Amino acid sequence: MASNKLARLVSRPVGMVKHDDFEIVEEPVREPGPGEFRVKVSHASIDPAMRGWLRDQRSYMPPVGIGEVMRAGAVGIVEASNNDAFKPGDMAVGQFGIQQYAISDGRGCYTVDPSKAPPERWIGGLGMPGMTAYFGLLEIGQPKEGETVVVSAASGAVGSIVGQLAKLRGARAVGIAGGPEKCAYVVDELGFDACVDYKAGNLYKDLRAACPNGIDVNFENVGGDIMNTILAQMNPFGRMPLCGLISQYNNTDLAPGPANFGSILVNRLNVRGFIVFDFARKYPEAARDLGQWHAEGKLKMREDVREGGVDAFVDTLNLLYSGGNFGKLVLKI
Amino acid sequence: MASNKLARLVSRPVGMVKHDDFEIVEEPVREPGPGEFRVKVSHASIDPAMRGWLRDQRSYMPPVGIGEVMRAGAVGIVEASNNDAFKPGDMAVGQFGIQQYAISDGRGCYTVDPSKAPPERWIGGLGMPGMTAYFGLLEIGQPKEGETVVVSAASGAVGSIVGQLAKLRGARAVGIAGGPEKCAYVVDELGFDACVDYKAGNLYKDLRAACPNGIDVNFENVGGDIMNTILAQMNPFGRMPLCGLISQYNNTDLAPGPANFGSILVNRLNVRGFIVFDFARKYPEAARDLGQWHAEGKLKMREDVREGGVDAFVDTLNLLYSGGNFGKLVLKI
Repeated sequence: MASNKLARLVSRPVGMVKHDDFEIVEEPVREPGPGEFRVKVSHASIDPAMRGWLRDQRSYMPPVGIGEVMRAGAVGIVEASNNDAFKPGDMAVGQFGIQQYAISDGRGCYTVDPSKAPPERWIGGLGMPGMTAYFGLLEIGQPKEGETVVVSAASGAVGSIVGQLAKLRGARAVGIAGGPEKCAYVVDELGFDACVDYKAGNLYKDLRAACPNGIDVNFENVGGDIMNTILAQMNPFGRMPLCGLISQYNNTDLAPGPANFGSILVNRLNVRGFIVFDFARKYPEAARDLGQWHAEGKLKMREDVREGGVDAFVDTLNLLYSGGNFGKLVLKI
Repeated sequence: MASNKLARLVSRPVGMVKHDDFEIVEEPVREPGPGEFRVKVSHASIDPAMRGWLRDQRSYMPPVGIGEVMRAGAVGIVEASNNDAFKPGDMAVGQFGIQQYAISDGRGCYTVDPSKAPPERWIGGLGMPGMTAYFGLLEIGQPKEGETVVVSAASGAVGSIVGQLAKLRGARAVGIAGGPEKCAYVVDELGFDACVDYKAGNLYKDLRAACPNGIDVNFENVGGDIMNTILAQMNPFGRMPLCGLISQYNNTDLAPGPANFGSILVNRLNVRGFIVFDFARKYPEAARDLGQWHAEGKLKMREDVREGGVDAFVDTLNLLYSGGNFGKLVLKI
């Protein structure tokens, strides 16, 4: 019988996540019980939200408990099953965690068609990150033809889809990303109208030049100085889906909020926080649309698949907070 | 012919508004031209938003220009008219400014029934402040039965109506005000369920005690530390109509934003800035409802009418920023 290598939380991180916060252990694989199946995990999704799941505070879901396997969306092949919806050989997506083998009762899981996209894409643009972009932009941002949509972390899993959906809606799509390589990718490969390099040091002016008619929708992923600069350039009645504040996630103290908060009042902005899980009842609709646009070649997706398996979890996660990944970050298990 | 005393802006204030920023002059009163009428102003509304109108920056309406009469909502009696909708003897409400006599073409003006309420009330709870409470709470806040609504500046023109409307909707109404006298008024006279004295120095704990089930709607009037404290106690899917940020209006530099900004994300709050003018097409509906509830004794209103006329404008305005008024602040002209 194979053994299962897994990453278990042993202490709550302070600041950046450290190797010591997890222990890597091997346990025997068990057989699935009644209604359960076992999946051999091939890829795990590495997401900014993970940092929040490690924090012991009131949030939209309970934190990962000390002693528990690290929570993660993942994809793999069903090996053994007592659940009719998941048959051996099926490719399945679910919250399988950072481990080589998972046992599941099927809640929150679904099967996908491996002929339509590689496994890592089913936890990226065709999975939760794609749906996050879909609901945040289309339901909350509601861009109209000719409006300007700005998205930070534009080459990332969510941002890359946001800009492409904005284009599909007839809006001007402006990305913000770090470095000339990512910016070129966002414009040349993804088809955004412009992409501003925040590392170039002239964010306010460069953003103004990229958005000559102001900003109607800001899909916010990062917070901090970038969000504050955007707030100063929002148009009246602009919308701001608040998806993430990744620049703040490793802070040990609360940072000051945006000094341009008053723009929300003066410009009558609508700022709305959301989590993709809030839209669970509409997943099938999003999956259908994203799958179709992907099949038609209208949605380009890029994954940054890292090797190293379970042992590499912490190092891979920390890439997100330094902008070290390029595309949807995935850990090969 | 009577002369018209008026307050004219001569320099843009830095920090608190000073006497030197205005000159008080007397000019001859002129006769109304075709389609115009002349009103003898009896009371002017003194509002927090005035500070914003004095600032030379992009906002929801152009700033008051140097050399112009100070903008103000006001009420008075029509004296002479070439406009069929406004007859001599009518009581009229409009943006007549800080002056004894105004000439108007009727745009944005309407007549009111002096038998139903005293003049100062038509620029208070039955005027723009009442409508501000109406649209902000009912259209944006959308309190449901049993939910908890918090409003800062609770004894003021807008806040006092917000809490009473929350009660009419079956919600728990919790005010925040400065000092025991205002808090007692808010509970005993206006019928709020509780009122927290922010000057007592235990805002977080006292607010927690007053809102044992958390906060579902925060009608935000003041910003700063009070808003930040409220953000930490918002319930998931809470709504936050953003009506004012009075604590920030006299700042010469941008203050930091709320450190608890992340609550908008984690709790999926909906924060929406608004200005009463955005709802202009629904004014008749609001006026009808407010007038009826007032007539039925369901809406109590209190005005703080100050003497001194045009000369007292600056001193009266500054009462707002020190919490020196008690009830809707009105300057008798």
